[in-house]
Amino acid sequence: MTPATLADLQTPALILDRSKVQRNISRMAERAAALGVALRPHLKTPKCVHIAALLQRAGATGFNVSTLKEAEFFHAAGIDDLYYCVPFAPNKAQRAAALVRDGCRLTLMTDSLDGARAAVAAAEALAGDTVLTFTLEIDVDGYRSGMALDGPDLVLAARLLQKSRATRFAGIMSYAGASYGKTPAQTADLTETHRRALARARATLLESGLDCERVSFGSTPAVLHARELTGITEARCGIYMFQDLFQAGIGACERDDIALSVLASVTSRQPRHNRLVIDAGGLALSKDRSTAGRDFDAGYGLVCDAASGAPLGDLAVTAVSQELGLVTSLSGAPLDFGRFPVGALVRILPNHADMTAAAYEHYAVVDGGAEVETVWARTNHWAD
Amino acid sequence: MTPATLADLQTPALILDRSKVQRNISRMAERAAALGVALRPHLKTPKCVHIAALLQRAGATGFNVSTLKEAEFFHAAGIDDLYYCVPFAPNKAQRAAALVRDGCRLTLMTDSLDGARAAVAAAEALAGDTVLTFTLEIDVDGYRSGMALDGPDLVLAARLLQKSRATRFAGIMSYAGASYGKTPAQTADLTETHRRALARARATLLESGLDCERVSFGSTPAVLHARELTGITEARCGIYMFQDLFQAGIGACERDDIALSVLASVTSRQPRHNRLVIDAGGLALSKDRSTAGRDFDAGYGLVCDAASGAPLGDLAVTAVSQELGLVTSLSGAPLDFGRFPVGALVRILPNHADMTAAAYEHYAVVDGGAEVETVWARTNHWAD
Repeated sequence: MTPATLADLQTPALILDRSKVQRNISRMAERAAALGVALRPHLKTPKCVHIAALLQRAGATGFNVSTLKEAEFFHAAGIDDLYYCVPFAPNKAQRAAALVRDGCRLTLMTDSLDGARAAVAAAEALAGDTVLTFTLEIDVDGYRSGMALDGPDLVLAARLLQKSRATRFAGIMSYAGASYGKTPAQTADLTETHRRALARARATLLESGLDCERVSFGSTPAVLHARELTGITEARCGIYMFQDLFQAGIGACERDDIALSVLASVTSRQPRHNRLVIDAGGLALSKDRSTAGRDFDAGYGLVCDAASGAPLGDLAVTAVSQELGLVTSLSGAPLDFGRFPVGALVRILPNHADMTAAAYEHYAVVDGGAEVETVWARTNHWAD
Repeated sequence: MTPATLADLQTPALILDRSKVQRNISRMAERAAALGVALRPHLKTPKCVHIAALLQRAGATGFNVSTLKEAEFFHAAGIDDLYYCVPFAPNKAQRAAALVRDGCRLTLMTDSLDGARAAVAAAEALAGDTVLTFTLEIDVDGYRSGMALDGPDLVLAARLLQKSRATRFAGIMSYAGASYGKTPAQTADLTETHRRALARARATLLESGLDCERVSFGSTPAVLHARELTGITEARCGIYMFQDLFQAGIGACERDDIALSVLASVTSRQPRHNRLVIDAGGLALSKDRSTAGRDFDAGYGLVCDAASGAPLGDLAVTAVSQELGLVTSLSGAPLDFGRFPVGALVRILPNHADMTAAAYEHYAVVDGGAEVETVWARTNHWAD
């Protein structure tokens, strides 16, 4: 039975504002269209078939996933074009092959010559004649995974993947994760550095007689702030659907764009400490502290009115235990305790939406008010 | 089908070492016996009926839970004496009452006069004649929830709970969470402060003609380092079953006692950055950074040999994205890349076991080696 209002939910609960999600999805679709690039949304953020459907309605045909469990979940829901764009571990070859045999157009990724060798060995060890499709990640800025652009490894790895009867080489990608600490102008510069590096990598591959059909690039801020994406065949973004306090802090959205929040109950008032206790703690909010050290450090999340979702001044969750959070004003201003009787509901905006959402199996979907329209399921974890 | 060895698992996976859990459980049972106090283990750490059975075999008869979902899960498994020792939100009254009607000896907690009023109102609004049993939390050190010991509220709240036909007052509790930043000697001092405060609270209640059958006190380090616990009727601890890097850092255990780890695959080697990439990131390890600023800052976890579980020098996960982690040596010493081909398995010791375990639905149980003996299920989340 779908709860009728927020007051019918058991706290903590994950709340999603449908209009905000829809607005975020439409904006990014328009942004990608303006850049002339295909948008490949990342389903690691919503992990939900209903949101995948909203993305399809906005024009998306292919998606990214961050786990094979997501790939299995979305393929079972009828989505075929899936890019598992995390460096591939060979122990996942059988699950990947099962998806391919089942009709999924699954693309995988590895990011080194060693990785390509391991991928080929794992694919060739599979029974039958399944072909696994691989891309290679380029390390442009040292942020995380990826292979160096200089040196022979890119061409050697691509050739290995192309030559094996059990694998296919489909192109290259990079991830502008380093955009997550930058101003919009710095992000635009970083994006241009990635774009040029990818173009150079593609040219090197073509000069070596290899194909490079996919040139994939991503991160929400990088695409939002890009000056141009010429030569990029697809833009990968995820967090834009929900947005969060970190994205707001780096100028990728306004706070009012944040579509995800956690509903919590006030369980105690502690005037002597100028704080409230709520029943959402480290598990319900996540221990993500990505706003730490930013201009606006939101602790573990910003406290909002439950019905409207609007921030209540500078109230934030400043400490968490496993199942409780402490709320106070960041400025030290006295709380209006009359507003928060025991049992009062509040909503908490998250630092990092992906991390917070992962603690929940469902979204309670609202639309700007306290009425719960429906409940949408998420997938979580890595294997059944 | 139970995987035969670690190599048969899909990474990331949660690994539990049975002998270490058993040793940790036995030690704390002995410690509580030496202190002459009943041990009430906290099931928020394992969330697993098999580990509850190990605790029962070591003498435990009552347990703590941190959510009503845990209470429902363990009551369905035949455990009756459960203490939901987190401040109660009135919207949970119906679920609590359903457990009581089903034969569960469930004890609840609130921590203010307001909270007691809300609890009584919620209990009296229930259909039927179910009686909800409440305790009151005392705030000894300002660490988190709890009511001030001075002033009339403690007696007023206890009397309210005792007088209502729908509630019962069962005693008091405190939580020495502030022990989590202290040396063993400081923790022993803090424990003594709590013990005396609880004794004073109990005396105040008795002088006012109220009963106070339960005097409950907890935190793993507080019980480990207590000089005495005279007057305490039960010790609440949880993390001792698994232990973690934070507990090792504050002297509550040795690293070798840590029973929980995450199995991960090496997906890339990046000699130019002196680092490895693994397929365990912020979701698989949690974003908990409780070792930050401690003598030994383990990043997001310490890297160990997969089969033996022994740390590999000072290799740690120093950065995470959602589904990948970067591994390097904390000292900057060059990695032995020959040891870590793509596909190699490693195990990661967690900063905070409760937070890491919460991302998984199962434990793969080993016993000092690479053989997987069995798989144990966990409960997670807050409501079905």
